[in-house]
Amino acid sequence: MAEVAPKRRYVVIMAGGVGTRFWPWSRQERPKQLLKLCGDTTMLADTVARVSRLVPTENILIVTGTALRKGVLEAVPELPAANVYCEPLGRNTAACVGWAAMEVAHRDPTGVMVVLPADHVVDGRSSFESDVRKALRLAEAPGVLVTFGIKPDSPSTGYGYIRAGAEWKEGRGARKVLSFHEKPSLSRAKSFIRRGNFYWNSGMFVWRADSILAELRSHLPRLAAGLEAMEAKRRRGRVPRAAIDSVYPRLQSISIDHGVMEKAKRVAVVPASFGWSDIGTWDAVGEVWPKDRTGNASHGVVISVDSSGNLAATEGKPVAFVGVEGLAVVDSGDALLVCSRERSQDVREVVEELKKRGLTGLL
Amino acid sequence: MAEVAPKRRYVVIMAGGVGTRFWPWSRQERPKQLLKLCGDTTMLADTVARVSRLVPTENILIVTGTALRKGVLEAVPELPAANVYCEPLGRNTAACVGWAAMEVAHRDPTGVMVVLPADHVVDGRSSFESDVRKALRLAEAPGVLVTFGIKPDSPSTGYGYIRAGAEWKEGRGARKVLSFHEKPSLSRAKSFIRRGNFYWNSGMFVWRADSILAELRSHLPRLAAGLEAMEAKRRRGRVPRAAIDSVYPRLQSISIDHGVMEKAKRVAVVPASFGWSDIGTWDAVGEVWPKDRTGNASHGVVISVDSSGNLAATEGKPVAFVGVEGLAVVDSGDALLVCSRERSQDVREVVEELKKRGLTGLL
Repeated sequence: MAEVAPKRRYVVIMAGGVGTRFWPWSRQERPKQLLKLCGDTTMLADTVARVSRLVPTENILIVTGTALRKGVLEAVPELPAANVYCEPLGRNTAACVGWAAMEVAHRDPTGVMVVLPADHVVDGRSSFESDVRKALRLAEAPGVLVTFGIKPDSPSTGYGYIRAGAEWKEGRGARKVLSFHEKPSLSRAKSFIRRGNFYWNSGMFVWRADSILAELRSHLPRLAAGLEAMEAKRRRGRVPRAAIDSVYPRLQSISIDHGVMEKAKRVAVVPASFGWSDIGTWDAVGEVWPKDRTGNASHGVVISVDSSGNLAATEGKPVAFVGVEGLAVVDSGDALLVCSRERSQDVREVVEELKKRGLTGLL
Repeated sequence: MAEVAPKRRYVVIMAGGVGTRFWPWSRQERPKQLLKLCGDTTMLADTVARVSRLVPTENILIVTGTALRKGVLEAVPELPAANVYCEPLGRNTAACVGWAAMEVAHRDPTGVMVVLPADHVVDGRSSFESDVRKALRLAEAPGVLVTFGIKPDSPSTGYGYIRAGAEWKEGRGARKVLSFHEKPSLSRAKSFIRRGNFYWNSGMFVWRADSILAELRSHLPRLAAGLEAMEAKRRRGRVPRAAIDSVYPRLQSISIDHGVMEKAKRVAVVPASFGWSDIGTWDAVGEVWPKDRTGNASHGVVISVDSSGNLAATEGKPVAFVGVEGLAVVDSGDALLVCSRERSQDVREVVEELKKRGLTGLL
């Protein structure tokens, strides 16, 4: 099967997340995808850069929230402003993917779209490009949905799993997806690992615009009808803002995994040859950041007295640890977090408490 | 025995300390006594305020280091600048006390001086005043040295101990000191507590200037000779700076406890009726600061998720704790300390490491 021509490829970046687990760095108008969590650029800019050799810039679409529009445009100034689509409020990934598919289809009904979250870390850009090219080839066939599977290195209960079957015809290593499994219990995750043919669901997808729209009509007909109502209002290339604002908030809120992938028949998985992390917590950041010889992760000066396994994320401020282990210490200038790394998930409880106390300046 | 008239009383505040255990708040030019560790004023200003109803301001003398002169004058602007005596370098407490006694004796040879460290916390000002008045009466007699004993509430190995004997004649609760004991082992400290007649040595003293000068001549003759060589140069009320700078650095470096108190014959102890702490570490600060209902000590906003027993000293910056216990978290704006409270003593190792690495801006 021939490779899809670059001008017929699209990348859709889902950048609507309002993650609270990176407080105090993350705030309502500066969520995870707009943070420089891994290096000198935002995670969104990293994601755009990662696909820059695969598609022309004008074919990169970003779906985000209205409140994030300014931050997104600042993070990726090279992108045409018209390519930033703003949801009046988040309606989960099925609505986001559906709207983006409609926009791609408007430009090229059989265009192939790569769907990527804006806040994942990928290690190995060439491997990533090669895997995406492979997926693009598979997805060129009508009705085929392609996902990327990550080989698990632990029985994580934080990811959904993909059960893979026989090799995909002409797949060059891709396999047929037998089933999707939501975040499992630890014992179930362990049995997945033992059985061997399970992958983590990375939440990255490739398909033709007409393929995914057909699946949406089939499995989420009300949502598809809503999108078509918006489409019916299209004038001079754009769906009018008023149509989006009236229809979008009433779309069904469901994930693309649950709403479509679990039900679709022709799904392939490309086992990822690149390194991947969705770095969902400060603990995961500590795994990715460089460690000094004392075993503390930081991008700045760390003084360690009998301390190891800590993360210091302090925007350049020197940190001294004395007799402590397994902590994440995060300074945002106006607030400070000191968290047991194994409790990183519970940082969202801090945000809940700030809301309760009306400390809106810190949200 | 009649009470000493206020104009014949002096207070000598020893403010030369270069403590490193309060890093990152404490720095070379801003040691513990110049920090606002307990409230809105510096510990030195607290100490001056504590004696303001006992002696006229012009009778309060401060001995400090040359590098701290500016900070001291800023902390206690009400004090005559001539009352601030600057050691060219620290030579421990015997030299400091001796120099101050010489200065008091120059004003009034039989004047009575109260010697106080600049960096202790006292709870109960009226009780403190009443105990000091009691000591002043005892010290009015020539040759009598008076100290204050703190009733131990635990077998601390961080303090020296005083063994008390029979009641002092006319002492109204004061007792004769039988012996001084340096910081003991834990088992020895426990036996002190069991025996009951032991007090912590608070390092606060009261005596006549001529009494302590006589003791210095008797027990530390070389140090006394040095001070007399300085005194011989006195002109127009002041010992010339050149005489101080040439003599002082060569004075014997020894504590007043070890050099004099342990050897003196006529020593009384006034059991303190006031609350006292030398707050020697961040851990001790955590004991003194107010705790919220989650058991975390702070003067600012603390969000606690399953965390207790922590200290947040962050100069007003809100702190969130998630799943952590027994930590001292200290922010100085330009540096951050995260320390196990039980390892607070080892903060000085951080300062050593900063020196080794040449990070002089943080010293």
